[in-house]
Amino acid sequence: MDFNIETNNSFIDKKISDLQKITDQDNPYTRIVFSKKFYEARSWLKNEYQKLGLLVSTDEAGNLIGTLNSRIKTHKTVIIGSHIDTVPSGGRYDGIAGVVAALCVIKHINENGINLPFNLAVYDYLGEELNDWGISCIGTRGMIGALTPEILSRSNTSGEVLRDEINKIGGNFEALGKPFPIFDNIIACLELHIEQGKVLEQKKIDIGIVRSIPSISRFHVEVIGQAGHSGTILMDQRSDALVTSSEIISFVNKLALRISKESNQHFVSTIGKIHVSPNAAAIIPGKVEMTIDLRASSQNSREQYLKELEEKIELMNKAGSCKIAMNNIAYAPYVEMDKELVKLFKKSADTCGMSSQIMDSGAGHDTAQLSRMAPASMIFVPCKDGLSHCPEEYAEISDISKGTAVLFKMLENLAELNKS
Amino acid sequence: MDFNIETNNSFIDKKISDLQKITDQDNPYTRIVFSKKFYEARSWLKNEYQKLGLLVSTDEAGNLIGTLNSRIKTHKTVIIGSHIDTVPSGGRYDGIAGVVAALCVIKHINENGINLPFNLAVYDYLGEELNDWGISCIGTRGMIGALTPEILSRSNTSGEVLRDEINKIGGNFEALGKPFPIFDNIIACLELHIEQGKVLEQKKIDIGIVRSIPSISRFHVEVIGQAGHSGTILMDQRSDALVTSSEIISFVNKLALRISKESNQHFVSTIGKIHVSPNAAAIIPGKVEMTIDLRASSQNSREQYLKELEEKIELMNKAGSCKIAMNNIAYAPYVEMDKELVKLFKKSADTCGMSSQIMDSGAGHDTAQLSRMAPASMIFVPCKDGLSHCPEEYAEISDISKGTAVLFKMLENLAELNKS
Repeated sequence: MDFNIETNNSFIDKKISDLQKITDQDNPYTRIVFSKKFYEARSWLKNEYQKLGLLVSTDEAGNLIGTLNSRIKTHKTVIIGSHIDTVPSGGRYDGIAGVVAALCVIKHINENGINLPFNLAVYDYLGEELNDWGISCIGTRGMIGALTPEILSRSNTSGEVLRDEINKIGGNFEALGKPFPIFDNIIACLELHIEQGKVLEQKKIDIGIVRSIPSISRFHVEVIGQAGHSGTILMDQRSDALVTSSEIISFVNKLALRISKESNQHFVSTIGKIHVSPNAAAIIPGKVEMTIDLRASSQNSREQYLKELEEKIELMNKAGSCKIAMNNIAYAPYVEMDKELVKLFKKSADTCGMSSQIMDSGAGHDTAQLSRMAPASMIFVPCKDGLSHCPEEYAEISDISKGTAVLFKMLENLAELNKS
Repeated sequence: MDFNIETNNSFIDKKISDLQKITDQDNPYTRIVFSKKFYEARSWLKNEYQKLGLLVSTDEAGNLIGTLNSRIKTHKTVIIGSHIDTVPSGGRYDGIAGVVAALCVIKHINENGINLPFNLAVYDYLGEELNDWGISCIGTRGMIGALTPEILSRSNTSGEVLRDEINKIGGNFEALGKPFPIFDNIIACLELHIEQGKVLEQKKIDIGIVRSIPSISRFHVEVIGQAGHSGTILMDQRSDALVTSSEIISFVNKLALRISKESNQHFVSTIGKIHVSPNAAAIIPGKVEMTIDLRASSQNSREQYLKELEEKIELMNKAGSCKIAMNNIAYAPYVEMDKELVKLFKKSADTCGMSSQIMDSGAGHDTAQLSRMAPASMIFVPCKDGLSHCPEEYAEISDISKGTAVLFKMLENLAELNKS
């Protein structure tokens, strides 16, 4: 039974509408991992799983799973997953589109009495977005054994320890040292996501088939100056941590702009988060903390960037009045998606009559983590003006529905390949 | 009866110790105006006034007053005042030293049965430090009729309106449109304060006698860019509000450094407060708000600075990808202290055998506001390394005690001049 775009539009629309209401009211759309609103959304999703007849469970990494067991007794599993957490003042589609698409696939399977030769598991991966603990993809890092004791023992600004939060939501941090046994049986990890870029929209293409995901590095930068009275400390006597930080911010921006031009591959770097102490108008800033975010599809570009940035900081430490320290706090390597799955997604899109393009992702995704342990691939659907991680983020429901059709076709193709 | 430095040291030490305990425990020394800790400190001070037999009152501007009436029936009044509020993570002496010195003067008068031919009023001026409402010197601005309806109607980040806070603490915002009647009878407004600079310490001088206080201007700067995903928006497609703000921060610093060198007068400018939205590591900053603080003893320098800064912003608005707006939110003009009072302070210091120097203030003070309506002057005592508005702020108790002796001698000299 073919997947009907029109009849599934209203289901997708309704679920996205439901979720967008679960937000910090003052700051839409905000549903930070482990927040009250996040727990509320998890309850909503658990209920959705149950309505669809899925077996609900939470794994040791805190991922919320709804499983449709095959009528054939098998351990073979296909995962369709994404995430329902958001960045602060984020959007309504990033991650959410993928979870809702997975629910819609289950609904279609249920309605048409389809049997698959593998178990199908819908995952809400825990905390995909970068959070206050300086880490993204908590759930999938947990699955592959990449949550180190150092990461698990980190505290956020409220003093909450990551490992305690994972346990509170139903995980078990003591089981997180190694890859989960489930990887012995995974046929494929699939994810539908909005593109968060402009390529599909500009070229009027229905489906982006992701070939690679860039490396993501994050660095914590601390600049120590000397706080003091803004009226009495003369200009040439100052160690102003914000003035020094400004030089770093400008440098990072110019350096990334230059390297991105020199390289033909994806390269971006951002300072999005800054904390100034004491942050009062009449006090010279004594301390600044910042996070540098770096995405690179080329290892050479990444190394060039780090070399120049480290040289700059060394120079500033020698010549300047503040003390600068930079530490790597997160790293996810550049990965390529499973080549067979990419081909099969292409075939699935073709069969559905959708236009498609094989492309590189700009953003990081849970699928990048999983691809280190299992065959994995993902597809993109278009979004408006490439806007994401902001309230203006928008995707057409019919575009998400088209992607969902391809996702279902992909399962049919995988079923064909895995017939017993 | 002469003021004995040694015997008063322990009183001053005790009172400063008492007040330093009334702080946000996580963030010493923090006692922001209208906060719970500020109310606690006000209760403490009211009790101190009562123990010294002072008549306690709160005026319409929310200043807490302890009055020692002259035994001669008179309306003539001398004010000794300073403030007990702090900046966030501020110090134990800024403002506090002046209030404690005033208490010590009263104690000395009480113990020695001294009668003065004028009423002596100890003031805790309300909210001297710059606060969340973008205004400093609430109490003294209120006294001189400089709290405009616009200022009174401002809200802080928690949505609390300034005029309501003034009323809650015992003031009456409806009476704040014009100078208070008390100015008809004020002989002198006197203040002891720590220098917050290094001149006295480096020259080993006991007392600084303040000749002038610089103009203080504050500007609100808003930079509007476009928030977006830090991984997917390419470097040359960005409107990063923090990158643009960094250019402004660097420019302001360099401009102020240059003008302060060109001018021989006090000139400093600082960006101490910055708010980035949404301030998350994986989101390009969409909006930045900052406060520029500017202090100038020369009107020409101030105008030169503003001209160049406005030109720079105009240029950035034309050529850049963000929209910048700058608004003046506070202004206190350059003022000179009363020349006769300066002379009398000098004579008082000489009589006490203290070394002294006539000097310009770098910081703003309540006394600058009051000097527009009444004869006013202030003295500085040394502080360590010029540090202020930070937890490291330190002054020797014996230095404050020396200043208190000069303050008392000043009252004796004023009494001599005002004999009936």
